[in-house]
Amino acid sequence: MNITDLIGYTSAFLTTLAFVPQAHQSWKTRDLSGVSLPMYSLFSLGVLGWLIYGVMIASWPIIVANSITLLLACVVLYLKVKHLRLITTLS
Amino acid sequence: MNITDLIGYTSAFLTTLAFVPQAHQSWKTRDLSGVSLPMYSLFSLGVLGWLIYGVMIASWPIIVANSITLLLACVVLYLKVKHLRLITTLS
Repeated sequence: MNITDLIGYTSAFLTTLAFVPQAHQSWKTRDLSGVSLPMYSLFSLGVLGWLIYGVMIASWPIIVANSITLLLACVVLYLKVKHLRLITTLS
Repeated sequence: MNITDLIGYTSAFLTTLAFVPQAHQSWKTRDLSGVSLPMYSLFSLGVLGWLIYGVMIASWPIIVANSITLLLACVVLYLKVKHLRLITTLS
């Protein structure tokens, strides 16, 4: 593997791994007030797009990285929607 | 442009655009308690890696998308660090 590929794979690993602590924190604390709903809606849609792109060009690194990111982003999105519903019910 | 490229560019646009509402909300409300510091640290580092990768393979779409994402992610990271410092000072 050359240095360029190594940087690409490391970057893919980091941007995927990043959503683990966010999903964990959101799940544990249920503190979602500062998390943006439009962000996670747009981001999940975009990552789904990347996943489809990966399937179309048959790129396993893109498929694997984006499947994991999509799952984690959807956890945060689900918790955010649940949080907003709770606020609406309480008010 | 073929359908595969179109899906790739649309996905890049969405995953970059997603950070605009998060940076805007965080800047406006200064509510950063639910935003994960490890997430934005790892994510910013990963996006910086993608930017370097884009420069190395001379890909303008990767350079442009990741420059914007890096800027927006760093805004959220800066506000989160500031928020944590404020909490430390107050306690």
